[in-house]
Amino acid sequence: MANLEYQPRYVLSLSCPDRIGIVAAVSTFIAQHQGWIVEAQHHADQEQMRFFMRQEILVESLPFDLETFRQKFHQIAESFAMDWKITLSTQRKRVIILCSKPEHCLYDLLARWRSGELAMDIPCVISNHETHRQFVEWHEIPFIYVPVTPETKATAYAKIMELFDHYQADVMVLARYMQVLSPTMCDRLRGKIINIHHSFLPSFVGAKPYHQAYARGVKLIGATCHYVTAELDAGPIIEQDVIRIDHSDAVDDIVRYGKDIEKTVLARGLRYHIEDRVLVHGNKTVVFR
Amino acid sequence: MANLEYQPRYVLSLSCPDRIGIVAAVSTFIAQHQGWIVEAQHHADQEQMRFFMRQEILVESLPFDLETFRQKFHQIAESFAMDWKITLSTQRKRVIILCSKPEHCLYDLLARWRSGELAMDIPCVISNHETHRQFVEWHEIPFIYVPVTPETKATAYAKIMELFDHYQADVMVLARYMQVLSPTMCDRLRGKIINIHHSFLPSFVGAKPYHQAYARGVKLIGATCHYVTAELDAGPIIEQDVIRIDHSDAVDDIVRYGKDIEKTVLARGLRYHIEDRVLVHGNKTVVFR
Amino acid sequence: MANLEYQPRYVLSLSCPDRIGIVAAVSTFIAQHQGWIVEAQHHADQEQMRFFMRQEILVESLPFDLETFRQKFHQIAESFAMDWKITLSTQRKRVIILCSKPEHCLYDLLARWRSGELAMDIPCVISNHETHRQFVEWHEIPFIYVPVTPETKATAYAKIMELFDHYQADVMVLARYMQVLSPTMCDRLRGKIINIHHSFLPSFVGAKPYHQAYARGVKLIGATCHYVTAELDAGPIIEQDVIRIDHSDAVDDIVRYGKDIEKTVLARGLRYHIEDRVLVHGNKTVVFR
Amino acid sequence: MANLEYQPRYVLSLSCPDRIGIVAAVSTFIAQHQGWIVEAQHHADQEQMRFFMRQEILVESLPFDLETFRQKFHQIAESFAMDWKITLSTQRKRVIILCSKPEHCLYDLLARWRSGELAMDIPCVISNHETHRQFVEWHEIPFIYVPVTPETKATAYAKIMELFDHYQADVMVLARYMQVLSPTMCDRLRGKIINIHHSFLPSFVGAKPYHQAYARGVKLIGATCHYVTAELDAGPIIEQDVIRIDHSDAVDDIVRYGKDIEKTVLARGLRYHIEDRVLVHGNKTVVFR
Repeated sequence: MANLEYQPRYVLSLSCPDRIGIVAAVSTFIAQHQGWIVEAQHHADQEQMRFFMRQEILVESLPFDLETFRQKFHQIAESFAMDWKITLSTQRKRVIILCSKPEHCLYDLLARWRSGELAMDIPCVISNHETHRQFVEWHEIPFIYVPVTPETKATAYAKIMELFDHYQADVMVLARYMQVLSPTMCDRLRGKIINIHHSFLPSFVGAKPYHQAYARGVKLIGATCHYVTAELDAGPIIEQDVIRIDHSDAVDDIVRYGKDIEKTVLARGLRYHIEDRVLVHGNKTVVFR
Repeated sequence: MANLEYQPRYVLSLSCPDRIGIVAAVSTFIAQHQGWIVEAQHHADQEQMRFFMRQEILVESLPFDLETFRQKFHQIAESFAMDWKITLSTQRKRVIILCSKPEHCLYDLLARWRSGELAMDIPCVISNHETHRQFVEWHEIPFIYVPVTPETKATAYAKIMELFDHYQADVMVLARYMQVLSPTMCDRLRGKIINIHHSFLPSFVGAKPYHQAYARGVKLIGATCHYVTAELDAGPIIEQDVIRIDHSDAVDDIVRYGKDIEKTVLARGLRYHIEDRVLVHGNKTVVFR
Repeated sequence: MANLEYQPRYVLSLSCPDRIGIVAAVSTFIAQHQGWIVEAQHHADQEQMRFFMRQEILVESLPFDLETFRQKFHQIAESFAMDWKITLSTQRKRVIILCSKPEHCLYDLLARWRSGELAMDIPCVISNHETHRQFVEWHEIPFIYVPVTPETKATAYAKIMELFDHYQADVMVLARYMQVLSPTMCDRLRGKIINIHHSFLPSFVGAKPYHQAYARGVKLIGATCHYVTAELDAGPIIEQDVIRIDHSDAVDDIVRYGKDIEKTVLARGLRYHIEDRVLVHGNKTVVFR
Repeated sequence: MANLEYQPRYVLSLSCPDRIGIVAAVSTFIAQHQGWIVEAQHHADQEQMRFFMRQEILVESLPFDLETFRQKFHQIAESFAMDWKITLSTQRKRVIILCSKPEHCLYDLLARWRSGELAMDIPCVISNHETHRQFVEWHEIPFIYVPVTPETKATAYAKIMELFDHYQADVMVLARYMQVLSPTMCDRLRGKIINIHHSFLPSFVGAKPYHQAYARGVKLIGATCHYVTAELDAGPIIEQDVIRIDHSDAVDDIVRYGKDIEKTVLARGLRYHIEDRVLVHGNKTVVFR
C-alpha cells in the first residue's frame, strides 16, 4: 500500500514468541503518543508459536525522533523478547549490484532506480567482466571490475566484502552474477545478499536450470528470489513466479521467457527487502507486501 | 490461515472512520480479557479515510459468551462509530443455491460442502429446471423447482424470497442461474446474493460473455464473483481470475476453459463470504483472505 | 479447437525421424482422397531430429472407413518409419478411475463425464476404500472395492490389472489414489496410467508434498499430471499448473488451494490423452492442445 | 521454437479461404525443391472458413533466392487466392520507438535490442519530451524531439509520418506514448503501429485505466498489446496479460505492478510482429508463437 503524496514514516518490524497482549502493548504505545499508523500487518505462526508484525507510522504524527523512539520502545521490546528494528522510510538503503555478462536484470534494476520506483542508492556496481562498464558509468555509478578465477577467488571475495564495508552497503544483489560465493561471505553477510535463481526452487538447483527444465519436460518455468546462504540455492525464499512454456519451446526460448520472470521476481523481492517487508525466521520468510 | 486442530473462534469484523487509537482500543479490550487472537488483519483506505479490521479470537480464551462480548464491545464500537459484527465460527452459514441447467458449479459446490471444505449448511437448492433434482436429492438436500417465465417472473421471485425467509438463509448463491433477478429482490437482499459472472468484469457485461470475448479476440478469459445489485453485473467484486486462450480456441473451447475458472472463483468468493472475510464499502470490497 | 456442430473425425497422430517431405506425403495423401483437415499440428524436435504430427480429418469427407485408411496409409508410414496410430473421434475411450478417500478429483471427473465435457466411458471406479460407493453407484457406474494392505498388495494389483483387461479399458486414472503401484503394473500399462501428483514436479516427489512445500517456504504450489512409470513421480509430464500462496497459509490452506489445481490439471491432462493429443517420446511429451 | 545455432530461414505466412489441398500444395512445392521446414503452424477458422499458415524453411536447403521463391510460389498463391508474404529471417525489421516521459518500456526495449533478444534495427526514437535524449543517444540511436500541442498536432503527426518514410521503417511502437494519433495516421499505417495499453482491454479504454481499475475494485489488472486503429484502443489484440492486486494496493501500487506487465506484454507482442508471427484477419489476430 502507498499513498500518492508521500509522507515520511517510521517502519517498525518485529517478531517474538506469540502470547496475549502484543498488539495491545504496541498499538497502545503508539496511540498514547498520537502516532498515526498508515500500514499494519501481523502474522501468527501457529506451528512455531511466533508472532510477526510490521507497522508504518507517520513521522510527523509522533513527538520524537528515531533515537527517542528506540529508547522508549526498548522496554516493550524487552518484555516480549522481541527481535525488532525500526527504520526511517526516507533513509534509502544502499544496494550494491553484482553482475556478470547477462544484461537483463542490470538494465531492469537501473531503470527502476532511475525512475524512483526502487527508492535506493547504488554506491557501486561490481562485475567479474568489463562488459557493462560504460552503461553503468553513464548512470554516474562507479563500476568496479573484480575478476574471479579459481586461483583469485579468495582475494576477489575479500575485495568484495571490503567494498561492501567501504561503501557502508545495506544489501548486495546478485543480478545474475555467475559465481558461487564463498561460505565465509555467505555467513558474514547473512540476510544481506539477495540472489535471483533461474528456476522455481527447489527444482533445478545449481547450474543451467533452464537446460534441466527442458530435459525434464516441465510445462512451466520459474524464477526464485532468495537470501543467499552457504548451501547453494537453499536460502529463505522471498518471491517466486512462473510462466507457461510448451513442447515447441527450445532451450533458448525458455531462456528468453525466463529472463522476463527473473527480472520481475528480483525487482519485487528487492523492493520487499529495502522497504523492510521481509522478516526471516529459520529458513522461511514472512513477506508483508 | 487455519490450523489443523480446529478451535472455535469469535470473528470480529468492523469498519469505521480512520483515526488514532482504533487498534489500541480493540486490542487492549481483547488483551484485558485474556483473548487469544489467532488471526488479525487491518486495512486503512487512505482515499476514503476509512479503517477496516477483522480479528479471530479463540472462544475458550475469553471468559464470556457471544452475547456478553457484544454488550461489552458495544461502547468501543460506539465511540469509534463502527459498522461492526461478531460471529461464531462454528455457527455455519445457511446458503441457498440457485442453479439452472449447467452443472459444473453445482457439482463443485456440493463436493466442497460434502467434504467439509466449505463449512456451510445448504437448506435447499432452487432451480428453474428439474434437471438436477435427483442429484441434489441424493445429497439429501431439498430441491425446489421454481419455474420462471416472463409472465410468472414476479411470482417466482416472490416465492424465492419467501424461501429465503422460510429457511432463515444467510446468503443465496447464483451458481450459473440463468435469470436476471428483479431490482426489488436485489435491494432487499443486498450483500446477501453472490453471483458468478463468466467474464473478467467490467468486460463483457450481460449475455453470452464468452461469445463476446471470442468476437473481440481477447487472449485471456475470466470469471468474476460479485455481490448482486440492481445494476446488471456491476456489484462489488469479491474475486476474479483468468486463463489463457489463443486463436485456436473456438467458443466451445472457451466455454470449457471458462467453467474451470468459474467454479474456482465462485468457491473462493463464497468461502470468503461465509467466513466473514469480505467487508463491503461503497461498490468495493476489502477481502481479508 | 472445436466446432459447435460436431462432425466425426479421424485422428491421425504420428512421430518419425525428421526429414524432407513428411508433411507433403501425408497431406497429399489426404488431399488426393478429398479429405477435409479441420485441425493440424506439427512439431520438429531439432535436438532429437524427430518430427511429430497430429491431424483431424472429417470422416464424411473421405471415401473409406478406418480399416481402409489404415491399409492405404500403411505404405507412407513404412517409408518414413513412422510410429503412428489412427482413431475415430466418436469411439469413446474407456477410462477406469482409481480413487481413495479424497473426493475432489472424483467429483470433478464425474461432473465432466456427466455433462459430456469429457467424452469418455467409465466402465468402473476402483477404490481401496468403500467411502464413495454410493456416490459412484448413483451415477450408475460399477464401484469395485479392492482393499490394499502390505500383505495383499500383489493380489490387489493383479486384480486391478484383471479388471483393466476385463473392461477392455484404454486408460486408468489415479484420481488421488493413495497407493504406489507395483513396477510390474507400471511397465505392463506403460502410457496407460495417468496420475495427478500434488506438487509442481520435480519438486516434492513422494509423500506429503504440501507439507514439504510448506516446510521449504515456497511462494507458489502446484500440481502435475503425468504418466506413471516405475520410478516414483518421474514419468512424462502432460500438464502442470500453480497457484500463489503466502506465509499466512497453513498446511490446510495449502491443501485447499492445491485441490483446485489438482482437479483442473488432471482434467486437462486426461482430456489431452483421450483426444489423442499427447505424443510421448522418451520421458517427454508433445501435447497438441 | 528456435535453435541454438541459428541458420537463416525464409518465413512464409499466408491466409486464404479454407478448402481441400492447401497444405498438400504448399508442402509439396517445398518438398519438391528439397526445402527443410523447421517450423510450421496452421489454423483453420471454421467460423470464417479461412485458413492461416506460417512456415520457416532453411534458406540453404532451397536452390533459389527470395525473389525466385516469390516468382515460383506465385502460381500456387493465385490458385488459392492467398493473402501472403515471404520474408528473410535475417533481414531485420526497422522499428521506430515513440515514447513520452515514462521510461520503463523504453529501457526494456533497448535492453532487449542491445542483447539481441529482439532482432531489430531502431533507426530512431521519437518523443514529445526531451527527457530521454541522453539515454537514447548513449545507445547511438538518433533521438528526435517532436513536440505535440493541440495547435501543432497536425504538423507533428505529418512530421512523424515523414520520419517513418525517411527511415524506411517497418513498424512503429508506441512505448507508452501519451498522445492519441490522428485517424489519418492510423489508416495510413494500418497494421504498422503497435501500442501497449495499460489495461486488460476491452475494459478501461482511454485515459487513466489504472485509476478506472482502482475505482471499479477489480482484483487483477492487465495490459494489452494491439495494433492501432482509428477507433481508440479497439484494434486487433496481439497479446495480453494480467497480475493480481488486492484492496491494499493504492493507485501507485497498481501503476507499479502494471509497468511490469506492460513491458513484458509489449516485448512479446513486438517480437511476434517482427518475426512475422501475427496474421490479422478482420479485427482479430492469429498469433503463431
